[in-house]
Amino acid sequence: MFDLEAVKAKLSPLYEEVVAKAEERQRDLVKPAGSLGMLEDISIRMAGITGRVKNSADRKILFLFGSDNGVYEEGVAASPQYFTHFLMNHYARGSRCGINVICEANHVKLVLVDMGIIGELDSKNIQSHKLMKNGTNNFLKKPAMERDIVLQAIEIGFRYAKYAKENGYDIIGNGEVGIGNTTTVAACIMAALGIINPELAVGRGAGLSDQAFERKKQVALKALRLHKPDKTDAVDILCKVGGLDIAAMTGLYTGAAYYRMPIVIDGVISVAAALLAYRIHPVVKEYMFASHISKEPAYALAAAEMQLKPMLDLKMGLGEGSGCPLAMQIIDTALAVMCNMDTFADLKLDTEYRNEIKKQ
Amino acid sequence: MFDLEAVKAKLSPLYEEVVAKAEERQRDLVKPAGSLGMLEDISIRMAGITGRVKNSADRKILFLFGSDNGVYEEGVAASPQYFTHFLMNHYARGSRCGINVICEANHVKLVLVDMGIIGELDSKNIQSHKLMKNGTNNFLKKPAMERDIVLQAIEIGFRYAKYAKENGYDIIGNGEVGIGNTTTVAACIMAALGIINPELAVGRGAGLSDQAFERKKQVALKALRLHKPDKTDAVDILCKVGGLDIAAMTGLYTGAAYYRMPIVIDGVISVAAALLAYRIHPVVKEYMFASHISKEPAYALAAAEMQLKPMLDLKMGLGEGSGCPLAMQIIDTALAVMCNMDTFADLKLDTEYRNEIKKQ
Repeated sequence: MFDLEAVKAKLSPLYEEVVAKAEERQRDLVKPAGSLGMLEDISIRMAGITGRVKNSADRKILFLFGSDNGVYEEGVAASPQYFTHFLMNHYARGSRCGINVICEANHVKLVLVDMGIIGELDSKNIQSHKLMKNGTNNFLKKPAMERDIVLQAIEIGFRYAKYAKENGYDIIGNGEVGIGNTTTVAACIMAALGIINPELAVGRGAGLSDQAFERKKQVALKALRLHKPDKTDAVDILCKVGGLDIAAMTGLYTGAAYYRMPIVIDGVISVAAALLAYRIHPVVKEYMFASHISKEPAYALAAAEMQLKPMLDLKMGLGEGSGCPLAMQIIDTALAVMCNMDTFADLKLDTEYRNEIKKQ
Repeated sequence: MFDLEAVKAKLSPLYEEVVAKAEERQRDLVKPAGSLGMLEDISIRMAGITGRVKNSADRKILFLFGSDNGVYEEGVAASPQYFTHFLMNHYARGSRCGINVICEANHVKLVLVDMGIIGELDSKNIQSHKLMKNGTNNFLKKPAMERDIVLQAIEIGFRYAKYAKENGYDIIGNGEVGIGNTTTVAACIMAALGIINPELAVGRGAGLSDQAFERKKQVALKALRLHKPDKTDAVDILCKVGGLDIAAMTGLYTGAAYYRMPIVIDGVISVAAALLAYRIHPVVKEYMFASHISKEPAYALAAAEMQLKPMLDLKMGLGEGSGCPLAMQIIDTALAVMCNMDTFADLKLDTEYRNEIKKQ
């Protein structure tokens, strides 16, 4: 079985010496210190991740995990459950759904992964890891998953980080599809982690009636009272109120840190998985970049918990990983600044001039 | 002389019929309605600008206007005045300053325009429109510019919008360089426009002592009391407390609307020019896209006045137009979504399925 403890023992922080060198180079670039804001921070952190001051995010990959959720049967989603299957099939068939088009526009390789979608998928463009044929259990009745299933799902995500590393990718994105995951599962996880109280965690979503919204909250509260997940144990939380997609994403984040690769967070489900990985080992947050602020109230709290600042505010809520490619382009520019800008030394300015420019 | 009234008379709103068609297409795309947030809004507004539902922002151009400001002699800037000259020369010499690298990374053509920088510039890569050889007058002593100079500067900017249109560019960005413009001139303009009170408008900038900061505020207050600019008259404001760069940018924004081209706003100086153009005719705001939220307090108020929402929050404050290329990439993606996503009809879904997906 996947040895999460052994993985944790090998996770390590940023290369501090390289961070210091990168900070020094940023100070030497021909601009007032700090004037490029987060572009500077991004390039500095990237140096600490890779161990090189100059980096590229040219080769981009995004893993989209799909799975179904047993809690669907409690009436917590506005869409029919077979939409998970329907959408994943369309992503794979060369149809042009949101994530297909957004990845293409930003030169991001899209990898589709079935973690437990109900029904056979008919495309060779989907990686099949159907750990539970009918998706997770309804966690109002019993735990969503067995512990060994959770560990297998984490391992699958972890191995995709390895895949990205071994295939020369520079940066990883992630997303999900799964009716019912949007608020119920992510909300329970956030509440179980102690980020937000369950009543606030449950977002309204789109097209949900007052009655359905109330039911959703009750489902979350009941599940948490029933299972009492251990807030210090990400695996326990995943077993009790998690999803297969979120477990795989948790593994992907952990793997990104293990293989020293930057990984971009999408929306509220993606950040729930990021938080679980952070609970496994806090150092993984050093490898994460927050793309866009989600409309869901729990997102901002989760990002703040990890001291991550989203770059974009576009009022997006599609999921699928759709915010990641946009952030990857910004990261690209941040790295170009670090690689390509002249330093004061390049311009052969004497010290007096330097100091004056810096004050500007 | 440039006939601003004739230009105003020809400015026109978005093509509402095309906006309606674009909205309809957005509703038909395979995603929950509204789930792509501002990406949807951007593509819809772009349709209203060009008159086509499907658009591209492939060919990007950014105009960077440089000029010096007479008010510099009041000790309102931390950098020496010759830095305007120094920086513009370096942009032009193929040096790799911030805007050079950021434009290159995002495939944006950079055009440098000298509106009144002190000293000769030695590059053929700079368009020379030196309307005042020594920059503007010190507006604590007399108006910054004569009215006909302001109109000439506006015309120059206006003609660069025409240049962009005639040369097949899809989208325009703008930026500036000019020691003293960062807060003093922009602050006076914002205050003159009634957006913010002068005390709050004057940002601290970097590296300024308490004493210098206080002096800066006093300069702004005195200039406004002395000249009493007419808040309803953008040209009057520019004459009294404006800058040559800002006047040209005001013309560029006006020209963008006239030639029906989208234009991206950078930071606080850029948004001051945008507001002046908006005061000339409110319809120009329909052609503007706000890139990133600036650290200067006046920025958010100016954007709100025009109901524009910045896409990015990167804590940047370099100027030079540096936020525009990043926003242009996001606009690119927004337009790709409109052009390339499948509709429900493409997927041959029946009506029942459609409604269900939309509710998701």
